[in-house]
Amino acid sequence: MKFGRLCIIGVGLMGGSLARALRNRGLCDSVVGCSRNVEHLQRAQKLGVIDEYETDIAKAVQDADIVVVAVPLGSMPAIFQRLNGHVRKDAVITDVGSAKASVVEAARTYLKAHLPQFVPGHPIAGTEKSGVEASFAELYQGRRVIITPLPENDPDAVERVQDMWIQTGATVQSMSVEHHDEVLAATSHLPHILAYALVDTLARMSDRDEIFQYAAGGFRDFTRIASSDPVMWKDICLSNREAILSILDRYKTDLDLLRSYIEHIDADKLESVFRSAKDARDRYTDEQR
Amino acid sequence: MKFGRLCIIGVGLMGGSLARALRNRGLCDSVVGCSRNVEHLQRAQKLGVIDEYETDIAKAVQDADIVVVAVPLGSMPAIFQRLNGHVRKDAVITDVGSAKASVVEAARTYLKAHLPQFVPGHPIAGTEKSGVEASFAELYQGRRVIITPLPENDPDAVERVQDMWIQTGATVQSMSVEHHDEVLAATSHLPHILAYALVDTLARMSDRDEIFQYAAGGFRDFTRIASSDPVMWKDICLSNREAILSILDRYKTDLDLLRSYIEHIDADKLESVFRSAKDARDRYTDEQR
Repeated sequence: MKFGRLCIIGVGLMGGSLARALRNRGLCDSVVGCSRNVEHLQRAQKLGVIDEYETDIAKAVQDADIVVVAVPLGSMPAIFQRLNGHVRKDAVITDVGSAKASVVEAARTYLKAHLPQFVPGHPIAGTEKSGVEASFAELYQGRRVIITPLPENDPDAVERVQDMWIQTGATVQSMSVEHHDEVLAATSHLPHILAYALVDTLARMSDRDEIFQYAAGGFRDFTRIASSDPVMWKDICLSNREAILSILDRYKTDLDLLRSYIEHIDADKLESVFRSAKDARDRYTDEQR
Repeated sequence: MKFGRLCIIGVGLMGGSLARALRNRGLCDSVVGCSRNVEHLQRAQKLGVIDEYETDIAKAVQDADIVVVAVPLGSMPAIFQRLNGHVRKDAVITDVGSAKASVVEAARTYLKAHLPQFVPGHPIAGTEKSGVEASFAELYQGRRVIITPLPENDPDAVERVQDMWIQTGATVQSMSVEHHDEVLAATSHLPHILAYALVDTLARMSDRDEIFQYAAGGFRDFTRIASSDPVMWKDICLSNREAILSILDRYKTDLDLLRSYIEHIDADKLESVFRSAKDARDRYTDEQR
């Protein structure tokens, strides 16, 4: 069938949802899941997400036509190292990491001869939940997937990865590794850090029980992303460190400016920042609908 | 009937929803709306939110049993000044301002002999929309209303305001002015400032069109509150200046700490902050459901 044998390394929300989407449409001959945790793999099999499983990466990938690495960013280098020499020469390898420079660096170091077949990818999708139990076939429907092809890439490999994501209902866009990391730092990584920091600030206040009682609707929306997986976000922060520090410093400068308008009772400037922010948000989020 | 004649000064989302809630339950003899804008009042009347209207405050309040001041915080002092001498001695006055110290200060200055009848209130409800068109009778159902009674208050006035909110389906809680302002600065004012600052930062980037394209679900939730009314939020920031600056500085310290963990690649500390934030959010927001 279209994508032959699919190997998913790391059968969580992202990997599990991809497997479900492709299996539901009958686009794979078989799906093999790989993880260190057997119980986890058994659950994935019971849920009908994968056909079979392997805890040994070498065995898991040996007959695969496409290998999708869907592990936390911090585990990518070790996985690439263990893939090397076991993946078929014509198999395509991709990943779903939320930061790309660190993944590409690891791929260059460890994938060696397989590099032309490795097409970095990042589906802009997910919920604050994680694990295979949270996976669902429609996760990628109508969402964007960014791929950041390498100069070394075999064009056929790029096409196959692109096609795979299109089949899940996503739109695929291509950009440079650096640009991806900048855009994601601004639109995803920074908001997560701000939300985590806010919950942290409130949780450390002496009257925190009462504080959280009065946390109304806006607060709940605002901090939903602070319920995301801490290990994953630790990895993202460290993997996309440079781009994150750069946008965080820009944000801090803007926040300091707002602070000074409040301190110096500058009503006009305060209102003008709020107004242009509201206008920008309304305009851009309207366009997306 | 129960609350007799109700006068709503400022017939927007908050005032309009209160009028609707009480009228729907047949708890008022009549509702008179007051604003400077006649067209606005005519719309409110057409929508069935108010029975009649007045642009002259003195006339609007003269026969009222309860006067609810639901104007932006910055307009409160002027309204109080114009109320003085025209409200009936036994009428109750309350407001819906999101910050209380500045309102109480204005009330002490301008309401004079009416002060024992003025019970400051703040319904913790609202959406990012504003205006009478956005008002609905269920806005306060299941929400919290904080009242901050003054030492000078007539106990009957406090009871009447409390009762009025209970009839809208809300739960009423009482606390000091200072405590209210601290709690709201942390749970509502700070998140709004952070969201406005984030949208502002992104809107000023050179590749902003692309940036906003990739703003995924989390970002949209996170910044929804940045679509709130700029004038209202300018007023809130200035009215609750002290408490906001204090919690904002606390937040900045915590954010700087997170930044230093990222800069110095301190994986353990980063993960531990993220984990305790996630735990706190999950625990407290679960309890609220």
